[in-house]
Amino acid sequence: MEYNEINIGDKAAIEKTITKYDVELFAKLSLDNNPLHLDPEYGSTSIFKDNIVHGILVSSLISAVIGNLLPGHGTVYMSQSLHFKKPVYFGDKCIAEVEVTAKKDEKKIIFLNTIVYVESKENVVITGEAVVKKP
Amino acid sequence: MEYNEINIGDKAAIEKTITKYDVELFAKLSLDNNPLHLDPEYGSTSIFKDNIVHGILVSSLISAVIGNLLPGHGTVYMSQSLHFKKPVYFGDKCIAEVEVTAKKDEKKIIFLNTIVYVESKENVVITGEAVVKKP
Repeated sequence: MEYNEINIGDKAAIEKTITKYDVELFAKLSLDNNPLHLDPEYGSTSIFKDNIVHGILVSSLISAVIGNLLPGHGTVYMSQSLHFKKPVYFGDKCIAEVEVTAKKDEKKIIFLNTIVYVESKENVVITGEAVVKKP
Repeated sequence: MEYNEINIGDKAAIEKTITKYDVELFAKLSLDNNPLHLDPEYGSTSIFKDNIVHGILVSSLISAVIGNLLPGHGTVYMSQSLHFKKPVYFGDKCIAEVEVTAKKDEKKIIFLNTIVYVESKENVVITGEAVVKKP
Protein backbone atom coordinates (compact mmCIF):
# COMPACT_ATOMS: atom_id res chain seq x y z
CA MET A 1 0.00 0.00 0.00
CA GLU A 2 1.36 3.45 -0.96
CA TYR A 3 1.68 6.25 1.60
CA ASN A 4 -1.00 8.30 -0.13
CA GLU A 5 -3.53 5.47 0.00
CA ILE A 6 -3.37 5.28 3.80
CA ASN A 7 -5.96 7.21 5.79
CA ILE A 8 -6.48 8.09 9.42
CA GLY A 9 -8.81 5.48 10.91
CA ASP A 10 -7.56 2.63 8.68
CA LYS A 11 -7.24 -0.63 10.62
CA ALA A 12 -5.69 -4.04 10.08
CA ALA A 13 -5.25 -7.15 12.22
CA ILE A 14 -3.52 -10.51 12.26
CA GLU A 15 -4.08 -13.47 14.54
CA LYS A 16 -1.98 -16.32 15.82
CA THR A 17 -2.38 -18.96 18.49
CA ILE A 18 0.95 -19.01 20.29
CA THR A 19 2.09 -22.49 21.29
CA LYS A 20 4.61 -23.91 23.75
CA TYR A 21 6.73 -24.80 20.71
CA ASP A 22 6.74 -21.12 19.59
CA VAL A 23 7.86 -20.08 23.07
CA GLU A 24 10.70 -22.63 23.12
CA LEU A 25 11.84 -21.54 19.66
CA PHE A 26 11.71 -17.87 20.62
CA ALA A 27 13.72 -18.57 23.80
CA LYS A 28 16.50 -20.05 21.64
CA LEU A 29 16.33 -17.22 19.12
CA SER A 30 16.29 -14.38 21.67
CA LEU A 31 18.48 -16.09 24.32
CA ASP A 32 15.72 -15.21 26.83
CA ASN A 33 15.61 -18.29 29.06
CA ASN A 34 13.55 -16.80 31.88
CA PRO A 35 12.03 -19.91 33.57
CA LEU A 36 8.75 -18.00 33.86
CA HIS A 37 8.36 -18.95 30.19
CA LEU A 38 10.06 -22.34 30.10
CA ASP A 39 9.98 -24.21 33.41
CA PRO A 40 6.56 -25.69 34.32
CA GLU A 41 7.36 -25.87 38.04
CA TYR A 42 8.62 -22.28 38.13
CA GLY A 43 5.54 -21.14 36.21
CA SER A 44 3.09 -22.91 38.50
CA THR A 45 4.51 -21.25 41.62
CA SER A 46 4.70 -17.78 39.97
CA ILE A 47 2.16 -14.98 40.35
CA PHE A 48 0.68 -16.15 37.01
CA LYS A 49 0.18 -19.78 38.22
CA ASP A 50 1.49 -21.11 34.91
CA ASN A 51 4.13 -20.45 32.24
CA ILE A 52 3.47 -17.38 30.14
CA VAL A 53 4.54 -16.31 26.65
CA HIS A 54 7.42 -13.80 26.29
CA GLY A 55 5.96 -10.29 25.96
CA ILE A 56 8.25 -9.53 23.03
CA LEU A 57 7.06 -12.62 21.17
CA VAL A 58 3.46 -11.45 21.53
CA SER A 59 4.57 -7.96 20.42
CA SER A 60 6.07 -9.39 17.26
CA LEU A 61 2.54 -9.83 15.92
CA ILE A 62 2.21 -6.02 15.89
CA SER A 63 5.32 -5.87 13.71
CA ALA A 64 3.69 -8.50 11.48
CA VAL A 65 0.54 -6.44 10.92
CA ILE A 66 2.65 -3.38 10.16
CA GLY A 67 5.10 -5.21 7.85
CA ASN A 68 2.48 -7.27 6.00
CA LEU A 69 -0.70 -5.23 5.93
CA LEU A 70 -0.73 -1.66 7.20
CA PRO A 71 1.28 0.19 5.96
CA GLY A 72 2.59 -3.15 4.57
CA HIS A 73 5.69 -4.27 2.70
CA GLY A 74 8.67 -1.96 2.89
CA THR A 75 7.51 -0.15 6.03
CA VAL A 76 10.37 1.08 8.24
CA TYR A 77 9.86 0.86 12.01
CA MET A 78 10.87 4.05 13.85
CA SER A 79 9.53 3.41 17.33
CA GLN A 80 7.19 1.23 19.35
CA SER A 81 5.92 1.54 22.91
CA LEU A 82 4.64 -1.59 24.65
CA HIS A 83 2.61 -1.85 27.85
CA PHE A 84 2.17 -5.42 29.00
CA LYS A 85 -1.23 -5.40 30.73
CA LYS A 86 -1.99 -9.10 31.19
CA PRO A 87 -0.17 -12.41 30.74
CA VAL A 88 -0.56 -14.56 27.62
CA TYR A 89 -0.66 -18.33 28.17
CA PHE A 90 0.32 -21.16 25.82
CA GLY A 91 -2.50 -21.82 23.35
CA ASP A 92 -4.01 -18.33 23.65
CA LYS A 93 -5.34 -16.95 20.36
CA CYS A 94 -3.73 -13.50 20.07
CA ILE A 95 -5.06 -10.81 17.74
CA ALA A 96 -2.79 -7.84 16.98
CA GLU A 97 -4.60 -4.79 15.63
CA VAL A 98 -3.21 -1.48 14.43
CA GLU A 99 -5.08 1.73 13.61
CA VAL A 100 -3.74 4.81 11.85
CA THR A 101 -4.07 7.83 14.16
CA ALA A 102 -2.02 10.50 12.38
CA LYS A 103 0.22 11.18 9.35
CA LYS A 104 3.11 13.56 8.75
CA ASP A 105 3.13 13.98 4.97
CA GLU A 106 6.42 15.82 4.48
CA LYS A 107 8.35 12.83 5.90
CA LYS A 108 5.86 10.06 5.01
CA ILE A 109 5.56 9.16 8.69
CA ILE A 110 2.53 7.31 10.05
CA PHE A 111 1.40 7.03 13.68
CA LEU A 112 -0.50 3.93 14.76
CA ASN A 113 -2.33 2.82 17.86
CA THR A 114 -1.28 -0.79 18.49
CA ILE A 115 -3.00 -3.39 20.65
CA VAL A 116 -2.94 -7.13 21.15
CA TYR A 117 -5.89 -8.96 22.67
CA VAL A 118 -6.68 -12.58 23.44
CA GLU A 119 -9.92 -13.85 21.89
CA SER A 120 -11.90 -10.61 22.45
CA LYS A 121 -11.27 -6.90 22.92
CA GLU A 122 -12.36 -7.25 26.53
CA ASN A 123 -9.06 -9.02 27.10
CA VAL A 124 -6.39 -6.60 25.91
CA VAL A 125 -2.91 -7.87 26.81
CA ILE A 126 -0.68 -5.22 25.17
CA THR A 127 -1.28 -1.55 24.43
CA GLY A 128 1.07 0.90 22.76
CA GLU A 129 1.89 3.14 19.83
CA ALA A 130 4.05 2.74 16.75
CA VAL A 131 5.69 5.34 14.55
CA VAL A 132 6.67 4.13 11.08
CA LYS A 133 7.88 5.49 7.77
CA LYS A 134 6.47 4.33 4.44
CA PRO A 135 9.09 5.42 1.88
CA MET B 1 18.93 -11.90 41.93
CA GLU B 2 16.58 -10.65 44.66
CA TYR B 3 14.95 -7.23 44.47
CA ASN B 4 16.92 -5.97 47.47
CA GLU B 5 20.26 -6.91 45.90
CA ILE B 6 19.66 -4.67 42.88
CA ASN B 7 21.09 -1.15 42.95
CA ILE B 8 20.74 1.96 40.83
CA GLY B 9 23.63 1.96 38.36
CA ASP B 10 23.80 -1.85 38.05
CA LYS B 11 24.40 -2.96 34.46
CA ALA B 12 24.27 -6.17 32.48
CA ALA B 13 24.69 -7.08 28.83
CA ILE B 14 24.29 -9.96 26.42
CA GLU B 15 25.55 -10.31 22.87
CA LYS B 16 24.46 -12.19 19.79
CA THR B 17 25.41 -12.15 16.15
CA ILE B 18 22.10 -12.24 14.30
CA THR B 19 22.16 -14.37 11.15
CA LYS B 20 20.01 -14.67 8.05
CA TYR B 21 18.79 -17.97 9.49
CA ASP B 22 17.62 -16.19 12.67
CA VAL B 23 15.73 -13.65 10.56
CA GLU B 24 14.02 -16.38 8.52
CA LEU B 25 13.04 -18.26 11.67
CA PHE B 26 11.72 -15.09 13.30
CA ALA B 27 9.68 -14.26 10.18
CA LYS B 28 7.94 -17.63 10.50
CA LEU B 29 7.41 -17.26 14.25
CA SER B 30 6.09 -13.69 14.12
CA LEU B 31 4.31 -13.96 10.73
CA ASP B 32 6.20 -10.75 9.76
CA ASN B 33 7.12 -11.38 6.11
CA ASN B 34 8.10 -7.82 5.21
CA PRO B 35 10.38 -8.32 2.15
CA LEU B 36 12.69 -5.66 3.60
CA HIS B 37 13.89 -8.51 5.83
CA LEU B 38 13.55 -11.50 3.50
CA ASP B 39 13.85 -10.61 -0.19
CA PRO B 40 17.42 -9.82 -1.36
CA GLU B 41 16.24 -7.85 -4.41
CA TYR B 42 13.77 -5.81 -2.37
CA GLY B 43 16.46 -5.16 0.24
CA SER B 44 19.06 -4.03 -2.28
CA THR B 45 16.72 -1.41 -3.76
CA SER B 46 15.53 -0.18 -0.33
CA ILE B 47 16.80 2.89 1.52
CA PHE B 48 19.06 0.50 3.49
CA LYS B 49 20.66 -1.01 0.33
CA ASP B 50 20.37 -4.52 1.81
CA ASN B 51 18.06 -6.71 3.88
CA ILE B 52 17.85 -5.73 7.53
CA VAL B 53 16.97 -7.60 10.72
CA HIS B 54 13.45 -7.17 12.20
CA GLY B 55 13.58 -4.46 14.89
CA ILE B 56 11.59 -6.63 17.28
CA LEU B 57 14.06 -9.51 16.88
CA VAL B 58 16.92 -7.18 17.85
CA SER B 59 14.80 -5.91 20.76
CA SER B 60 14.33 -9.44 22.04
CA LEU B 61 17.94 -9.33 23.25
CA ILE B 62 16.88 -6.64 25.75
CA SER B 63 14.26 -9.04 27.07
CA ALA B 64 17.00 -11.68 27.29
CA VAL B 65 19.25 -9.49 29.47
CA ILE B 66 16.30 -8.66 31.70
CA GLY B 67 15.02 -12.25 31.94
CA ASN B 68 18.42 -13.89 32.40
CA LEU B 69 20.64 -11.41 34.20
CA LEU B 70 19.23 -8.16 35.52
CA PRO B 71 16.87 -8.41 37.35
CA GLY B 72 17.05 -12.04 36.09
CA HIS B 73 14.84 -15.11 36.38
CA GLY B 74 11.24 -14.49 37.30
CA THR B 75 11.23 -10.83 36.24
CA VAL B 76 7.86 -9.61 34.96
CA TYR B 77 7.89 -7.16 32.05
CA MET B 78 5.55 -4.19 32.56
CA SER B 79 6.55 -1.91 29.68
CA GLN B 80 9.23 -1.25 27.08
CA SER B 81 9.81 1.67 24.75
CA LEU B 82 11.86 1.10 21.61
CA HIS B 83 13.41 3.69 19.30
CA PHE B 84 14.94 2.14 16.20
CA LYS B 85 17.83 4.49 15.37
CA LYS B 86 19.81 2.54 12.76
CA PRO B 87 19.37 -0.65 10.75
CA VAL B 88 20.92 -3.97 11.79
CA TYR B 89 22.27 -6.15 8.97
CA PHE B 90 22.70 -9.93 8.82
CA GLY B 91 25.88 -10.96 10.65
CA ASP B 92 26.00 -7.84 12.85
CA LYS B 93 27.18 -8.52 16.41
CA CYS B 94 24.49 -6.94 18.62
CA ILE B 95 25.08 -6.12 22.26
CA ALA B 96 22.03 -5.38 24.43
CA GLU B 97 22.77 -3.53 27.65
CA VAL B 98 20.47 -2.53 30.49
CA GLU B 99 21.17 -0.21 33.41
CA VAL B 100 19.05 0.28 36.53
CA THR B 101 17.97 3.93 36.76
CA ALA B 102 15.36 3.88 39.53
CA LYS B 103 13.48 1.61 41.96
CA LYS B 104 10.04 1.82 43.56
CA ASP B 105 10.39 -0.31 46.68
CA GLU B 106 6.76 -0.56 47.76
CA LYS B 107 5.85 -2.38 44.53
CA LYS B 108 9.25 -3.95 43.76
CA ILE B 109 9.34 -2.11 40.44
CA ILE B 110 12.62 -1.41 38.64
CA PHE B 111 13.27 1.14 35.86
CA LEU B 112 15.99 0.39 33.32
CA ASN B 113 17.65 2.26 30.52
CA THR B 114 17.89 -0.17 27.60
CA ILE B 115 20.13 0.06 24.55
CA VAL B 116 21.34 -2.19 21.76
CA TYR B 117 24.50 -1.41 19.84
CA VAL B 118 26.43 -3.10 17.05
CA GLU B 119 30.09 -3.79 17.86
CA SER B 120 30.68 -0.52 19.77
CA LYS B 121 28.72 2.08 21.69
CA GLU B 122 29.36 4.52 18.88
CA ASN B 123 26.87 2.50 16.88
CA VAL B 124 23.68 2.44 18.96
CA VAL B 125 20.79 0.90 17.00
CA ILE B 126 18.02 0.86 19.63
CA THR B 127 17.36 3.10 22.63
CA GLY B 128 14.54 2.87 25.13
CA GLU B 129 13.37 2.23 28.67
CA ALA B 130 11.93 -0.78 30.45
CA VAL B 131 9.79 -1.00 33.56
CA VAL B 132 9.78 -4.39 35.27
CA LYS B 133 8.65 -6.01 38.47
CA LYS B 134 10.82 -8.42 40.44
CA PRO B 135 8.37 -10.24 42.75
